[in-house]
Amino acid sequence: MDQVQKILEGDVRSLARLMSLIENGAAEAIPALKALYPHTGKAYIVGITGPPGCGKSTLTDRLTEAYRARGQTVGIVAVDPTSPFTGGAILGDRLRMQRHFLDQGVFIRSMATRGHLGGLARATNDVVDVLDAAGKAIIFIETVGVGQDEVDVVKAAHTSVVVMVPGLGDSVQTIKAGIMEIGDVFVVNKADRDGADRTVQDIEMALMMNPPGNAWAPRVCRTVATRGDGVADLVEAIEAHRQFAQDGDGRARKHRERTEHVLLELLRDRLARRALERAEANGSLEGLLDRVARRETDPYTAVEAILGKLGL
Amino acid sequence: MDQVQKILEGDVRSLARLMSLIENGAAEAIPALKALYPHTGKAYIVGITGPPGCGKSTLTDRLTEAYRARGQTVGIVAVDPTSPFTGGAILGDRLRMQRHFLDQGVFIRSMATRGHLGGLARATNDVVDVLDAAGKAIIFIETVGVGQDEVDVVKAAHTSVVVMVPGLGDSVQTIKAGIMEIGDVFVVNKADRDGADRTVQDIEMALMMNPPGNAWAPRVCRTVATRGDGVADLVEAIEAHRQFAQDGDGRARKHRERTEHVLLELLRDRLARRALERAEANGSLEGLLDRVARRETDPYTAVEAILGKLGL
Repeated sequence: MDQVQKILEGDVRSLARLMSLIENGAAEAIPALKALYPHTGKAYIVGITGPPGCGKSTLTDRLTEAYRARGQTVGIVAVDPTSPFTGGAILGDRLRMQRHFLDQGVFIRSMATRGHLGGLARATNDVVDVLDAAGKAIIFIETVGVGQDEVDVVKAAHTSVVVMVPGLGDSVQTIKAGIMEIGDVFVVNKADRDGADRTVQDIEMALMMNPPGNAWAPRVCRTVATRGDGVADLVEAIEAHRQFAQDGDGRARKHRERTEHVLLELLRDRLARRALERAEANGSLEGLLDRVARRETDPYTAVEAILGKLGL
Repeated sequence: MDQVQKILEGDVRSLARLMSLIENGAAEAIPALKALYPHTGKAYIVGITGPPGCGKSTLTDRLTEAYRARGQTVGIVAVDPTSPFTGGAILGDRLRMQRHFLDQGVFIRSMATRGHLGGLARATNDVVDVLDAAGKAIIFIETVGVGQDEVDVVKAAHTSVVVMVPGLGDSVQTIKAGIMEIGDVFVVNKADRDGADRTVQDIEMALMMNPPGNAWAPRVCRTVATRGDGVADLVEAIEAHRQFAQDGDGRARKHRERTEHVLLELLRDRLARRALERAEANGSLEGLLDRVARRETDPYTAVEAILGKLGL
């Protein structure tokens, strides 16, 4: 398979073409994904999550520079769930791509589209696998961290970085236990702003109140990504966690978690697709829809009927 | 069924109990949902979406006051996808509930939890149906508008209100075509801030560039929700769209769209649940996971195997 060989060699055009197929949910992508899978598992995956405007992209760019300076190749997957309010991100990504355009060691992919049946998480997982097979040493997955899919994507990374900014919430109450579960490394970006000390303290306090289950003590870093301040510290924190996570059975356990996540997402995606194809093929879907719309039956009974016809 | 009768009469405790069952995905909720379904279809559903911090909740409270003053009962469903960054919303909702506590004509439900297999959209749809059956005349669904699920929820409303604030994006380029499809009414909240005129112009320009497919010309309103300014205009705009949408076959079409959305969400939810139960019951899931984790097979082949065993 010519295309697969080209991707294993890191050919940019072939990578981009396969990723478009993945994003469109095209069946042609599947043989390539199957062929590439045995070549995955070498990349180190870092999830970077934070609210819109926290400077995630700039921080990721700085991390990319730092890892490129260490001679490592980098893949970036920017997950932007279809949202009317983050439209600016697309423009930003174009600028970013231009910045790294001449560097063959960096590949950036923005994931924005999402079909009627979801599939963003499934497509993101596939794109990460492709970058892994293509030999990228480190892969950053950037998400806005809203929605369970994106949180799952980040949780499944080897190291998860949570980015915050001063003044986002002005009390420890706004830092929920949930965020403590996610982060291996916390970053207070825009740390030259008022309130940075307070935000660092709030995170440290919340970490004390919700000690993580494993032996890793999450680090808290300060950065000013626009100037590059604190990025070396952040790299050190990521590498410290990587060292920690790879000791013992940490890496194998993380890998199994990610595998489970990938498999469940794919299963959800494929199940819905097959079931709808079947239901549409035998014409039962439209009829049921009409009956529910006329309130002659209810959604639960209708879905049970579809599942029944499928023998489930 | 005693519980169903109580809900039809609007009993607050019974409503809250059923909604908790729905949120937890408990099977006990299903008979009640089936029994309530024939009583749905009377409420007018308004989706309100906008980025965090745009003042959605305050605006919804003002709209609630306005509709209560018109003698209508109100249901509010605040959708907050599990997010570490919107943790503050929970506290805010408690305060809101206290504000309307003595008013039996208002019921507020915050949807925040979401199981491993998703289901937020499914639960939100069910809660809206319950409020509808309980006789609420108008139901507001509030979402942050990030993620396809939430956008779908809002699209399926009878009238969709998109809330923006001055200075969010400072160019028409940040207002994507996607947002134009969603909004029947646009609100520039915090309209006393600098840049409000510009934001209104940007929206109007974008509407001109992306004229909506139907004959309705979306309205653009200005509000200062904290002071109640412009809320009367907003109510008028919502009512104008309601009038428009109910003429001809508009309401029936919207209803069918919402039915389709509800049915597909439920189908996805139930399919994944059944398939996993089956796969776990015959022990094939763990074995496949192990094989994928060891890269002896790939996720696509593994999922095909599960689908094959299910006869799909």
